[in-house]
Amino acid sequence: MINQVREKMNSSKIDTLWITDTHSIDFLTKYHCEAGERFIGLCITQQEVILVLNHLFEYDGISEVQVVYYYDFEDVHELISKHTVGKVGVDKFMSTQFSLPLSKSFDLVIGSDCVDRLRAIKNENEIQKMVAASKLNDYVMSLVPSLLKEGVSEKEVAVKIQKLFFDNGADALSFQIIVAFGANCADPHAVPSDRKLKKDESIIIDMGCKLNGYCSDMTRTFFLNKNPIKEIYDIVLLANQEAIKAIKPGCKFSDIDKVARMIIEKAGYGVHFNHRLGHGIGKEVHEPYDVSMSNDVLIEPGMCFSIEPGIYVKNQFGVRIEDLVYVNQDGVAVLFNEYTKEDEVIK
Amino acid sequence: MINQVREKMNSSKIDTLWITDTHSIDFLTKYHCEAGERFIGLCITQQEVILVLNHLFEYDGISEVQVVYYYDFEDVHELISKHTVGKVGVDKFMSTQFSLPLSKSFDLVIGSDCVDRLRAIKNENEIQKMVAASKLNDYVMSLVPSLLKEGVSEKEVAVKIQKLFFDNGADALSFQIIVAFGANCADPHAVPSDRKLKKDESIIIDMGCKLNGYCSDMTRTFFLNKNPIKEIYDIVLLANQEAIKAIKPGCKFSDIDKVARMIIEKAGYGVHFNHRLGHGIGKEVHEPYDVSMSNDVLIEPGMCFSIEPGIYVKNQFGVRIEDLVYVNQDGVAVLFNEYTKEDEVIK
Repeated sequence: MINQVREKMNSSKIDTLWITDTHSIDFLTKYHCEAGERFIGLCITQQEVILVLNHLFEYDGISEVQVVYYYDFEDVHELISKHTVGKVGVDKFMSTQFSLPLSKSFDLVIGSDCVDRLRAIKNENEIQKMVAASKLNDYVMSLVPSLLKEGVSEKEVAVKIQKLFFDNGADALSFQIIVAFGANCADPHAVPSDRKLKKDESIIIDMGCKLNGYCSDMTRTFFLNKNPIKEIYDIVLLANQEAIKAIKPGCKFSDIDKVARMIIEKAGYGVHFNHRLGHGIGKEVHEPYDVSMSNDVLIEPGMCFSIEPGIYVKNQFGVRIEDLVYVNQDGVAVLFNEYTKEDEVIK
Repeated sequence: MINQVREKMNSSKIDTLWITDTHSIDFLTKYHCEAGERFIGLCITQQEVILVLNHLFEYDGISEVQVVYYYDFEDVHELISKHTVGKVGVDKFMSTQFSLPLSKSFDLVIGSDCVDRLRAIKNENEIQKMVAASKLNDYVMSLVPSLLKEGVSEKEVAVKIQKLFFDNGADALSFQIIVAFGANCADPHAVPSDRKLKKDESIIIDMGCKLNGYCSDMTRTFFLNKNPIKEIYDIVLLANQEAIKAIKPGCKFSDIDKVARMIIEKAGYGVHFNHRLGHGIGKEVHEPYDVSMSNDVLIEPGMCFSIEPGIYVKNQFGVRIEDLVYVNQDGVAVLFNEYTKEDEVIK
């Protein structure tokens, strides 16, 4: 894997690559460490692979890596500089406190794509783990309608869903569960509140769990008793389905975004679909590459991402339908999650 | 508050300050937003305060701030650059993907201290919230000994503690709870495992919760049945107590670290106390300033931090005793948490 990174460094003329994203370090070394505010960095050159790590932690990843430990009181900038040569690729997420001193002596570029490109393409083993995480997500989603009673609050539902995940073996949540009722659905990142569910209201549930280090993520929009915005729901559903149908290796991610966006625009709601169509997913719930109109990266087999069109009208309503897909070796887009999106009314 | 930041910018000759730390933005604007991989930045000049925010989110903080919204498909670098003038202070945590383009056209320095210095000094209202979070931490810690039975696993104890926090009103955990038995105690950041508790073993519990936006954090080392390393325990306890006694406004943080470190060094275990003595705490569990031998910042009334000496001998044992303190307006160091540290044996 390190040698594939080196090939990519060569073609970008990068002599030293500093990776600080802990999930990328894990991907390359099989060592995961959340060092908090303490520096952790994997330094790759054509000759060496060095991990700069605080003494508090103990490396137990692949043997190819040489570990340089430092103490809390040591000057880590000096250590970073000492191991750097030539043109430097730095992690897009590297804290500026570490990159700025380096930029005084070296020519820096963002070098994350040398790893991101490899991370984005999942192998069979990773796909199996993602399938398992989505199966659990499907199961918990199948229990959600029974929680959606008149008078229950968004917070209460979120707490119950969280408990269901942990009771059924999830290692963690992929992110804080979104539960939104009625007009709160118009906020794509709604935080569960004390608002109580009323009859004929919409319900957005956006949730996912981590299992064996990989994430799931799915959104369903339900309605209690009846769906008064069936027309809106069907536009979003069509955008979701047609975008998924359009996925093929060799397409640009921006092309897929366009398929969904055109459907929503033609229906007159373009301005109310105010986010990208989707995001890459794997060890992290959001990772490269975006399914967005500004991303012209080409889709390849093994890539995993979300398709989540939405229509949001402030103070009125919101609908989002999200599925995870991957592109298999035959070039076919396969759904990770299978919970129905055509049975949205809860009686 | 913004004017106090401007004074500090003046004395550092910073014309534009970009703050991206979401807790610092919250501190200055009363608006909290976790934007994930999407850029969020508060731009302060002597004339303006601008928040650059993705359209997905909706600002509801203080009115002094002018909000510039952008869409997922827009070039955020251009926006950042457009609002920047003169010498630029950037957040130490700003992702390099955003600071590197800026550094091509502007002179950058790390400017976080203009805000960190203000955040570090808590007002009476903040202190009261931190007292409440620590009271809850004390209460849950008082229930921990009853969970520590022969044969229980580290993971089981961690899950039970987590449940106790949520059942008793915590908003979140400050961090993933550390539960370590026997030789696992030698790892300061031990992750709870399936290891089962045996008689006469040590137990490290390091835990904290968030309540109303503020964190608690405390560590106790217990022993089931008897304490076979009483001598080690007493050295760590003395280091904890003497360091706390030494805290006074006008002292350097490094002086306090030295008090604890000298006690442990004199006892012959200096090399086994492999981390800083403590860390600032508030909205985040780790925030400025470190209690470390390399930090010569002076202690002021209103500062809140941990005192957590430890001795760790690999494959053998570990002891850590952590309290939170703050310095009151009379210059006295006051404990936030009060759970006993002199009754470590569980019968």
